[in-house]
Amino acid sequence: MRRVALVGATGYTGAESLRLLHGHPAFELTHLCADSKAGVPLADSLAPFWGVDLPMPVRFDPAEVAAKADFAVLALPHGTAQDAAASLLAAGVRVLDLSADHRFADPDAFARVYGPHKYPEVLRETVYGLPELNRAQIREARLVGCPGCYPTSVVLAVNPALRAGLLAGAEVIADCKSGVSGAGRTPTAGTHFTETSEGLHAYKTLDHRHAPEMSMALGGMAVRFVPHLVPMNRGILSTVYLRLRAGVTAAEARRVYEEAYAPEPFVSVLPAGLHPDTRNVRGTNRCHIGLFVSDDLLCVQSVIDNLVKGAAGQAVQCVNLMAGLPETAGLDHTALFP
Amino acid sequence: MRRVALVGATGYTGAESLRLLHGHPAFELTHLCADSKAGVPLADSLAPFWGVDLPMPVRFDPAEVAAKADFAVLALPHGTAQDAAASLLAAGVRVLDLSADHRFADPDAFARVYGPHKYPEVLRETVYGLPELNRAQIREARLVGCPGCYPTSVVLAVNPALRAGLLAGAEVIADCKSGVSGAGRTPTAGTHFTETSEGLHAYKTLDHRHAPEMSMALGGMAVRFVPHLVPMNRGILSTVYLRLRAGVTAAEARRVYEEAYAPEPFVSVLPAGLHPDTRNVRGTNRCHIGLFVSDDLLCVQSVIDNLVKGAAGQAVQCVNLMAGLPETAGLDHTALFP
Amino acid sequence: MRRVALVGATGYTGAESLRLLHGHPAFELTHLCADSKAGVPLADSLAPFWGVDLPMPVRFDPAEVAAKADFAVLALPHGTAQDAAASLLAAGVRVLDLSADHRFADPDAFARVYGPHKYPEVLRETVYGLPELNRAQIREARLVGCPGCYPTSVVLAVNPALRAGLLAGAEVIADCKSGVSGAGRTPTAGTHFTETSEGLHAYKTLDHRHAPEMSMALGGMAVRFVPHLVPMNRGILSTVYLRLRAGVTAAEARRVYEEAYAPEPFVSVLPAGLHPDTRNVRGTNRCHIGLFVSDDLLCVQSVIDNLVKGAAGQAVQCVNLMAGLPETAGLDHTALFP
Amino acid sequence: MRRVALVGATGYTGAESLRLLHGHPAFELTHLCADSKAGVPLADSLAPFWGVDLPMPVRFDPAEVAAKADFAVLALPHGTAQDAAASLLAAGVRVLDLSADHRFADPDAFARVYGPHKYPEVLRETVYGLPELNRAQIREARLVGCPGCYPTSVVLAVNPALRAGLLAGAEVIADCKSGVSGAGRTPTAGTHFTETSEGLHAYKTLDHRHAPEMSMALGGMAVRFVPHLVPMNRGILSTVYLRLRAGVTAAEARRVYEEAYAPEPFVSVLPAGLHPDTRNVRGTNRCHIGLFVSDDLLCVQSVIDNLVKGAAGQAVQCVNLMAGLPETAGLDHTALFP
Repeated sequence: MRRVALVGATGYTGAESLRLLHGHPAFELTHLCADSKAGVPLADSLAPFWGVDLPMPVRFDPAEVAAKADFAVLALPHGTAQDAAASLLAAGVRVLDLSADHRFADPDAFARVYGPHKYPEVLRETVYGLPELNRAQIREARLVGCPGCYPTSVVLAVNPALRAGLLAGAEVIADCKSGVSGAGRTPTAGTHFTETSEGLHAYKTLDHRHAPEMSMALGGMAVRFVPHLVPMNRGILSTVYLRLRAGVTAAEARRVYEEAYAPEPFVSVLPAGLHPDTRNVRGTNRCHIGLFVSDDLLCVQSVIDNLVKGAAGQAVQCVNLMAGLPETAGLDHTALFP
Repeated sequence: MRRVALVGATGYTGAESLRLLHGHPAFELTHLCADSKAGVPLADSLAPFWGVDLPMPVRFDPAEVAAKADFAVLALPHGTAQDAAASLLAAGVRVLDLSADHRFADPDAFARVYGPHKYPEVLRETVYGLPELNRAQIREARLVGCPGCYPTSVVLAVNPALRAGLLAGAEVIADCKSGVSGAGRTPTAGTHFTETSEGLHAYKTLDHRHAPEMSMALGGMAVRFVPHLVPMNRGILSTVYLRLRAGVTAAEARRVYEEAYAPEPFVSVLPAGLHPDTRNVRGTNRCHIGLFVSDDLLCVQSVIDNLVKGAAGQAVQCVNLMAGLPETAGLDHTALFP
Repeated sequence: MRRVALVGATGYTGAESLRLLHGHPAFELTHLCADSKAGVPLADSLAPFWGVDLPMPVRFDPAEVAAKADFAVLALPHGTAQDAAASLLAAGVRVLDLSADHRFADPDAFARVYGPHKYPEVLRETVYGLPELNRAQIREARLVGCPGCYPTSVVLAVNPALRAGLLAGAEVIADCKSGVSGAGRTPTAGTHFTETSEGLHAYKTLDHRHAPEMSMALGGMAVRFVPHLVPMNRGILSTVYLRLRAGVTAAEARRVYEEAYAPEPFVSVLPAGLHPDTRNVRGTNRCHIGLFVSDDLLCVQSVIDNLVKGAAGQAVQCVNLMAGLPETAGLDHTALFP
Repeated sequence: MRRVALVGATGYTGAESLRLLHGHPAFELTHLCADSKAGVPLADSLAPFWGVDLPMPVRFDPAEVAAKADFAVLALPHGTAQDAAASLLAAGVRVLDLSADHRFADPDAFARVYGPHKYPEVLRETVYGLPELNRAQIREARLVGCPGCYPTSVVLAVNPALRAGLLAGAEVIADCKSGVSGAGRTPTAGTHFTETSEGLHAYKTLDHRHAPEMSMALGGMAVRFVPHLVPMNRGILSTVYLRLRAGVTAAEARRVYEEAYAPEPFVSVLPAGLHPDTRNVRGTNRCHIGLFVSDDLLCVQSVIDNLVKGAAGQAVQCVNLMAGLPETAGLDHTALFP
């Protein structure tokens, strides 16, 4: 059994991490660190856990975590994971951070988006935790910054065409649509049921912090990113628009994607004509991809569950790699349908 | 034109009142009083009003209201309408209060539910604003306390059977289901999209403040009231369970309801076998009623739009009565479907 | 009073037309033609109309319609409106067709999308019923083909930039998102609640029949159109991506849109930074537009209610023009919020 | 490994059975029988299964099933499971039927609800598959009729009070609310997205076929059952109203329920004051129960996932018992939240 601690459990990515860690056949959950809930059974604040056998929440203490755990998954608010990661690494625990705090290895790049990092030397060793891009480095990593939910879906949609040289220019328009859980668990006017259901809008048009992350992961590509909020709980659909080089055919584009993802356990390229639907990956670590070409326009559509492949599931996938387990261990769910 | 002021415009009942007052062919909207928004176009805080020609919001001043308006609709938080109503009445304005502050004419009854009223003498002259119950008194009233949304639907469902003496005992079980707008516009954990959609629960079981109001309007009947929160924006379905006196038949019960509501412009008793659906009254001041009998059990189902017949529409219906207008003026909408 | 007949009343655009015609202060509804429902009160098949005073449905007979009506609104399935329109025009009735049967005046263009038209001579006189584009011609028209819902939103989003010469090239990427009512009232696997809610997908990517209609209305522009189905009832959000000519600034683009739409009663350009939301136009004939620029990319977002400005409301707006009424008569609703 | 066949895979209970059987650590899925899909990969009709390693669907053949499987789960339409069950039993396979075909062991009782059974002798040996009621008999059963979704939730809510003699009279009012997946996968007008979302209604009031099943499982109690359709995918909330014998206190009622369910792995009685929510058991085999007392009225609220504890999960729980496995094997999920 691999010994894994969870730090931060009361937000959505924390609760989802707990669901996956609890159900993992090769993990032992050593700690549930939640300062604000220490000593109080988690079900008191998270009713889905009534009747589930869980450790009592404790205050976060890196030494105590290090005494029992080999891995720690951090599900903390952006900005607060820097101290936790640094202290755990110093204590010898390998760290997977779900926050945005360790997604750029370059401190300057990080600072341009999020402001100065407190531990630039720590940051330099972070590995971007997208196994389909960085599998070998993740295996050896001490610190993994798990990608954002939008970047996961966009990078998986764009990367094969980019790497295979199919594209003219280096720009992508990423029109992305997300369920509301991506906005977190804190109630706001914008996520009030009656202001969210039966409506649809974009937000932070061409001005969202995930765009530089996508660009970093896509070799500096210009990313025109427009996120939209959709009245559903989970799921991201990214519709990306790319320009093909002259002469690249639909068949060739399809072949490139199918070859790129044939070995991947979690990514399926759908047959021609089929459209991916977020519903079909709900609750799973899977990504479905659809491909459409008209003239020189390549439209790629990718769907993920933002809380699984876009967050907690990707972290488990990375721990599996780091721990030498089968990559799909504890992640072989089929979607909750309907 | 009747001159009407709206006091409080930024909550849901306020916005809905504004929608109905703005569209009323015989009303002139004299004031839009919203202290926190004075001098700021309402569309800035209520985007549905972009492009709509409205008065600029002003601070509430009873003398200024009285100078131009004959009627004032109060859409203020519970507790804060007492001062406004008293000052407007003193200035000669007839008042319709959408809050809970003037639903009981008996100060003691009020105090048992909501605590002491600041103006018991004012309270004594309030009329309970359910036209199907109190039409004549509403016509003459200076102060109308508009019923709560749940009481409106339950009282309309129970009253004909009660008045006609069909019932054994004096108890009703009222299992009511409401859309989320009934919870107001302030974001809370319980109305966060992701904690509301795709779920269902009761709340305040057998302990909700609308039960005594129902009991008051139903001649002291014992009301066992269990409200539920349903993942939809608008609408209340009340499923009420009543015991028929021995020998009362389904046909007799139906006849009583049909006769009671034949003259009512807003209440329809559906043909036998049909079930009312909240969707069919959305955006309207209507109430649909379904009747079902098995042995001695009478199950009545009533649906309303909680923000219209359960709040703003009922207020407009009362103003129509008070102003000598046709009762349906400005309220002859058909439902927004789908 | 203008005398208007409704032909076809049981689909969503028919029901919505009925809602608007019934509530119009200057219209008399002369006929409700619905062959399959003739002689049966409409409420039997459309429960929202319980309690509403409506004409009894009759079989469609152009002579009888012509005897009493000056205008006919056709809410018939695509393909079936051709006979109805031809016969009504021959009988002297001015026709507004909500179906796709009269959106192209050029029979060849029509045939390429929908197959041969049965009455090419009739088709030649059709006017494309988008008042913001064709107001003068609509006033004089005998036959108006009301635009599709997607084209309405996309053309309103693109046209000012195109007409003002702001654009480089002649291509638009239109990533559009629609509520489910756009798919009609016939149940299908794809619109089953449990296969629609809590999910999101595109359909007919780069291959939808509304693309040639958009292109026609936009002077031959290349339209890359990807529609998506969103789990909500009503509303279209079109996010369109356009390339600005070198040197065109965000301020200049904004000025062009504001000037173009300043005189329009139903179109509002939102202040900089604000995002339009379908919720804010629900139930109304309004269109809200948001503008965003980054480098040479202009992202325009427009929202409409697909059943109102995208169908029945637009028809009423056209009848108002044809009948010499104020353009906003019977259409001055504010949104149903929430 | 226990060898289990699934017969019927394309409806919701079939797909859910497949999800649970596929993820069960001690089951081998021997056959996927789906006549209409034989030879076609299941993902073609059930897109959630893209990328999941499943057996190819085959035509149902009891001899072939018996050659490899010890257990068969039937997820067939009501009425069609009778032949399948009889043939499988004759071939030596132990059968769990999710349809309504084997819920009554008494052929006369069955016939009164569903018409004559084709194999009354087979029916006589069926065991009602609610482990909390019939654990010992299920262990030894050859044929288990899995309870309906509504009966599961109502029986779990009522049974402890009934068995402990807390009740006056022998009647229960069961006001139940279900998500739409309970209506099955065939599109109908009543489950069309736009006729289901943003609305709420009862159906088959006091006239639903699950009432006699509840009555049978509750020792002949009179069950007044009113089901409602709620705009969500999964979940049943049953609000049941019971009369307490004179002198029975809230504390006593609570003690009875807590003792009854303390040994049950899937049933949790929530602390006083807490309301169960369907969301908190979504995707799990769990049942949460809330208890409320006022005077002599006991209101019990129970929530389940209709497709898991109300169908496929209960079948797996029964197979676990029949196979001598831990009762929670393959069922220890925590809810998908949000």
